[in-house]
Amino acid sequence: MNRKGILVVVSGFSGAGKGTLMKKLVQEYDNYALSISATTRTPRPGEENGREYFFVTREEFEKRIADDALVEYACYCDNYYGTPRDYVEQHLEQGHDVILEIEIQGALKIKGKYPDALLLFVMPPSAAELHRRLSGRGTETKEVIEQRLHRAVQEAQGIEKYDYIVINDDLDTCVEELHGIITAAHNTPLRNEEFIEKMRMELEGEE
Amino acid sequence: MNRKGILVVVSGFSGAGKGTLMKKLVQEYDNYALSISATTRTPRPGEENGREYFFVTREEFEKRIADDALVEYACYCDNYYGTPRDYVEQHLEQGHDVILEIEIQGALKIKGKYPDALLLFVMPPSAAELHRRLSGRGTETKEVIEQRLHRAVQEAQGIEKYDYIVINDDLDTCVEELHGIITAAHNTPLRNEEFIEKMRMELEGEE
Repeated sequence: MNRKGILVVVSGFSGAGKGTLMKKLVQEYDNYALSISATTRTPRPGEENGREYFFVTREEFEKRIADDALVEYACYCDNYYGTPRDYVEQHLEQGHDVILEIEIQGALKIKGKYPDALLLFVMPPSAAELHRRLSGRGTETKEVIEQRLHRAVQEAQGIEKYDYIVINDDLDTCVEELHGIITAAHNTPLRNEEFIEKMRMELEGEE
Repeated sequence: MNRKGILVVVSGFSGAGKGTLMKKLVQEYDNYALSISATTRTPRPGEENGREYFFVTREEFEKRIADDALVEYACYCDNYYGTPRDYVEQHLEQGHDVILEIEIQGALKIKGKYPDALLLFVMPPSAAELHRRLSGRGTETKEVIEQRLHRAVQEAQGIEKYDYIVINDDLDTCVEELHGIITAAHNTPLRNEEFIEKMRMELEGEE
């Protein structure tokens, strides 16, 4: 069976718990590599270069765009965010499943470039629970919470573009489900063309 | 998450070990129902009605065809083989994943009628191993073995029509893989339309 890595794109509503899920997934299983985005925004207190993001200058970011050194990028609130290509491609080549956390427009761009990418959408068990989680952080104003719920309504329109959904009710169960889905994805015929072709040749030889 | 059953169609070369796999899968996990085909052929020594097959008369079988009581059927060597519809639909409705072992033409007919069906193809680790298994049975003439290898060559042309392949090298590993693939399949957006629609309505309510 092939072990070429799969590019796994994870999206989901803000508050669905993607970050915690990804961290746990990478801790529990050793076949994953978590891609870290580059950004031009200023680090927040506690953020570390190379852990949350690679913090780069606008000039450096635009050079990367010009060099086609990003798998995808986008601009929000006047800051660039993008996925460094070298990290992704090196790890795929080494057989690691590379995880990107990215919103829907980015996810669809990735699918366009890498038709083989696996798109996963993380959902909360209910909208009420999402609201609770967003409020429970206690760090956001009512306005920000409303904005995120509004954005969730928009993002929910695109769920059918994803290959799989997972419901983040219990963290451990959800991590296991994610791992199960990614493991299963290694068994599609498209991802095993070499093995299938080899089997065909061998069968003709045995005949 | 939904628990409507999935119709799982399992194909694979003669000698790939499908029968043993299916039996073990159904023993290990309680969400599966193994569909038993109806046939007009004569029972072989040791075969039991309702275990290997439902043995019926030609008249009875043709009545079932006329009544649309079969999900699919085919005729080989002058005998009919078919999948009883009532068993399949009752178990799907009850949330069981229904397993059918069937060859490729039947599998594609099923996919036409049930686009939601999951098509799995069981392969041996290599053609040489398939040859060994076919010879090792010791019950078949050289001619029959040649026929089966020839048929494997033909069947191998259709592997890309399947959703997943599994390689039956170690029985327990393969059963686990099958179970993992079927479990993951419950998480596609198509199989969770109700949940997604409910989430959308709720999110709009929370906004």
